[in-house]
Amino acid sequence: MEHFISLYQMSVKEIEEVLQLAKNFKEAKYRLDRELFIANLFFEPSTRTKSSFEVAEKKLGMKVLDFTPEHSSVTKGESLYDTAKTFEAIGANALVIRHGDDDWSEQLGSNLKIPVFNAGAGKKEHPTQCLLDLYTIEDYFGYLEGLKITIVGDIKHSRVAKSNAYALERFGAKVRLSAAESFIDDSLPYPYISIDEAAETSDVLMMLRVQHERHETEEQVSNYLARYGLTVQRERKMKENAIILHPAPINRGVEIDSRLVECNRSKIFKQMENGVYIRMAILTTILKKWGIINDNDLKKC
Amino acid sequence: MEHFISLYQMSVKEIEEVLQLAKNFKEAKYRLDRELFIANLFFEPSTRTKSSFEVAEKKLGMKVLDFTPEHSSVTKGESLYDTAKTFEAIGANALVIRHGDDDWSEQLGSNLKIPVFNAGAGKKEHPTQCLLDLYTIEDYFGYLEGLKITIVGDIKHSRVAKSNAYALERFGAKVRLSAAESFIDDSLPYPYISIDEAAETSDVLMMLRVQHERHETEEQVSNYLARYGLTVQRERKMKENAIILHPAPINRGVEIDSRLVECNRSKIFKQMENGVYIRMAILTTILKKWGIINDNDLKKC
Amino acid sequence: MEHFISLYQMSVKEIEEVLQLAKNFKEAKYRLDRELFIANLFFEPSTRTKSSFEVAEKKLGMKVLDFTPEHSSVTKGESLYDTAKTFEAIGANALVIRHGDDDWSEQLGSNLKIPVFNAGAGKKEHPTQCLLDLYTIEDYFGYLEGLKITIVGDIKHSRVAKSNAYALERFGAKVRLSAAESFIDDSLPYPYISIDEAAETSDVLMMLRVQHERHETEEQVSNYLARYGLTVQRERKMKENAIILHPAPINRGVEIDSRLVECNRSKIFKQMENGVYIRMAILTTILKKWGIINDNDLKKC
Repeated sequence: MEHFISLYQMSVKEIEEVLQLAKNFKEAKYRLDRELFIANLFFEPSTRTKSSFEVAEKKLGMKVLDFTPEHSSVTKGESLYDTAKTFEAIGANALVIRHGDDDWSEQLGSNLKIPVFNAGAGKKEHPTQCLLDLYTIEDYFGYLEGLKITIVGDIKHSRVAKSNAYALERFGAKVRLSAAESFIDDSLPYPYISIDEAAETSDVLMMLRVQHERHETEEQVSNYLARYGLTVQRERKMKENAIILHPAPINRGVEIDSRLVECNRSKIFKQMENGVYIRMAILTTILKKWGIINDNDLKKC
Repeated sequence: MEHFISLYQMSVKEIEEVLQLAKNFKEAKYRLDRELFIANLFFEPSTRTKSSFEVAEKKLGMKVLDFTPEHSSVTKGESLYDTAKTFEAIGANALVIRHGDDDWSEQLGSNLKIPVFNAGAGKKEHPTQCLLDLYTIEDYFGYLEGLKITIVGDIKHSRVAKSNAYALERFGAKVRLSAAESFIDDSLPYPYISIDEAAETSDVLMMLRVQHERHETEEQVSNYLARYGLTVQRERKMKENAIILHPAPINRGVEIDSRLVECNRSKIFKQMENGVYIRMAILTTILKKWGIINDNDLKKC
Repeated sequence: MEHFISLYQMSVKEIEEVLQLAKNFKEAKYRLDRELFIANLFFEPSTRTKSSFEVAEKKLGMKVLDFTPEHSSVTKGESLYDTAKTFEAIGANALVIRHGDDDWSEQLGSNLKIPVFNAGAGKKEHPTQCLLDLYTIEDYFGYLEGLKITIVGDIKHSRVAKSNAYALERFGAKVRLSAAESFIDDSLPYPYISIDEAAETSDVLMMLRVQHERHETEEQVSNYLARYGLTVQRERKMKENAIILHPAPINRGVEIDSRLVECNRSKIFKQMENGVYIRMAILTTILKKWGIINDNDLKKC
């Protein structure tokens, strides 16, 4: 069976089913009528994703095993694979992993007998973030097809830009990019436009975080807002129903004016809310595929 | 609605109700018949307060979300406000916060839609500690009015001295202070007496921790016990029914002789025990005020 | 009542009862029908032992209090004893402790009113590891008496070698040791043999970890595998039914060839699995002895 590592492994139909399931979880309470353990192995800092998975797991009634790398045998040199096998051996039914290596999932090999959920892989992918972005857009507009969506910011170092663009296009959205010169990724097959054009013409502005922690030069971020970010002036020129997304954490005043974070157009905290239901959906979908749970285990309550 | 930040926001009647409710929780098991999530955001080290809140929350049947600042997006510069809003968005019904800034609660503004419980604010206030102190004294004597209570130690840097003194006086206790010169806070309207007078005349000695971690000079603590602390000799001169309190962690041999920590007069571990019931009481009181729970949700079991 | 600190405090009969109880826990689900809190106080890094205790506790339905020393008042100098008394005061019904001092249990004195479980004491003892080793061997062979068991590796710094050898001998196994010169402990009354002789003649090879983190010299580990470790060549000469154990974390390529970690003979991940049941068994056994639970509290489910 496959782990849940990448959005590229999902068909459009599978994505639609996950979005629909997330909607069900948002509308009514469900609970797994079965004792299941899940371990959240976060090798990199996270507030949203880690806690969102934790809430999703606990809403489903799963027992959550916490793990912090610096209190673990990782400090004695234990590998990701051996750590994963250890949690399998002591009874975890699934693992959620965030790790700084782009390709950490390749280290898992084929010996692991429990599903792994990607909660962030270096700057490569973060598939549950992508799913919750899709969900939030579709929840607001009712559809994805034909929407003009611009991904704005540090395209080059983002772990969501590429897979988001790919997924949005498969659903018929028209994807464009907007970035400062040093943040451009030339390998992506989408046109780059200015932030002004992006603001005026897009239905959705998907802002990205300027990832201070992945950069060296501080000057890259000074005056960033005025030149490349979403200012109040630019927000005023947005289309009537256009919305703003951001995966957070937000650099207030860098990629977006602080006053816009909770404006009417902003669905930033809505994204976080939706993330819980998306994670409930993907957890149950994959656990079912693996035969760890079946339809009868999921009880409405 | 108001967050629970300060003892100064409570009327005498409200405090009495919380103390009574804590007594109920001590005498019988109660449980919230409802799925509630609570996040404990401790930006400063804590054993007692954090675990006490955790036990209180779990006894009430709440689901607890853990958070450690160095594994969170706080390391990427995320603010307290954005962290709090994140937990609100992913489904927390309440937040417990300890932070080193005296005025962190002012950063929360009015946009947060879930109640926040102060578990320690810099050197300003720590209201649940104050409530559990009141509870422990009243539980032992049966009343507060007329008791002679001396707060002893590092008054200047303490986050409980000022609000404790204020609350005790409102309940009719006679408050005095005792401190080494460098620990005196002149702004408080209570008389300073020597530790010898304090020991001989008080019904309650509320010892404070000499907060090494907030000071620079090591000499401030050398010979501290003999000159300003509670020695065995001084304890022998205490009134027959007088008791000793301390919020802990204790510097054994600094502010109090190690042999006194578990003597008959010492209610130090009793304070910790009572702290759980006080926190159950304040959690349910505020959750009810906010309409998050109602009377029927609290079931005796 | 006694804490659970050492294998030396258990009679053969008591060990047999724990092994039998672990077998019951492996075969059917049991749950404590009672609200019990347990705190896991790990002052040293651990993946397996900490998570194994956590799974065991949660399978039994206990509420788990987490603790990380650097977020606790230990950073303010609080002692192990005061930390333990704090958790007792706030309602923990039992404590699991790992600490780097060989003799930390002596600091607990006799004032603690809840049982303590040793999850690792410096390089002195780690009794639940020993029990799960016994369990894994007996589970595989059906008996212990007469088995030739060689403990291989860093005998000198190991916290399991001595007590394992002692326990195995009491059950009639024939114990031998194999170690590089610098890892020999002369005080143990068992013969040392070469790794080649060990591989060819043993029913069980109990590999130990080369504990980098307890050593200074890096050269002690270079070429270690070829001279003292379990190579593929040596594994091929093992007896038909002979098995390999290792407490992990494994230094792949140091004490054992990486390809052997999951070979048929290796029971390394089986040990981890069994560890959960052993911990359930020892927790319930000691809690019963202390009168904290009784036979009726343990329900099959």
